[in-house]
Amino acid sequence: MILLRRELGDVLREQRQHQGRTLREVSASAAVSLGYLSEVERGEKEASSELLGSICTALGMPLSTVLSQVSSRVAETEALTAPVTLPVAAPSSIASAA
Amino acid sequence: MILLRRELGDVLREQRQHQGRTLREVSASAAVSLGYLSEVERGEKEASSELLGSICTALGMPLSTVLSQVSSRVAETEALTAPVTLPVAAPSSIASAA
Repeated sequence: MILLRRELGDVLREQRQHQGRTLREVSASAAVSLGYLSEVERGEKEASSELLGSICTALGMPLSTVLSQVSSRVAETEALTAPVTLPVAAPSSIASAA
Repeated sequence: MILLRRELGDVLREQRQHQGRTLREVSASAAVSLGYLSEVERGEKEASSELLGSICTALGMPLSTVLSQVSSRVAETEALTAPVTLPVAAPSSIASAA
């Protein structure tokens, strides 16, 4: 199952690193503990809506942008994990080949 | 602050109602309690990533689609609540008017 908190964590971490900022800087700006932010980025903890909002503000990103990026990531993963239907020979052709 | 759980709850409830299904049907299909689903739909409880995945499956919607709809809703709300910058007279013009 694709887990929202993992994809969300990846997006938040990538954005922070893209800005060249440390966990310490962003956690202080968002008024969350460094350990909490680290766990959220690793997809180990569900971010509450309030703290997600604070983290987005600290990163200077609208929540809608973060969700849009997460949606795109999830869509890629869904495409990779979609069930594949293989062609199966009809029973008659198997019988005639035997 | 725009809260993810409220926008997410609205999307999930609208989708369920659009399908003409009851809380009882979808909660049974998702293997979550009716009370939990009801609280999630009302934006009163944060859905864990696992249970969100189950609810999406029960609704027959990919998680990416749900997130995309939530992102659009959040973007609309952000546009409505964006701070407005009003023109302010320069100090010199105020001084000359006095």
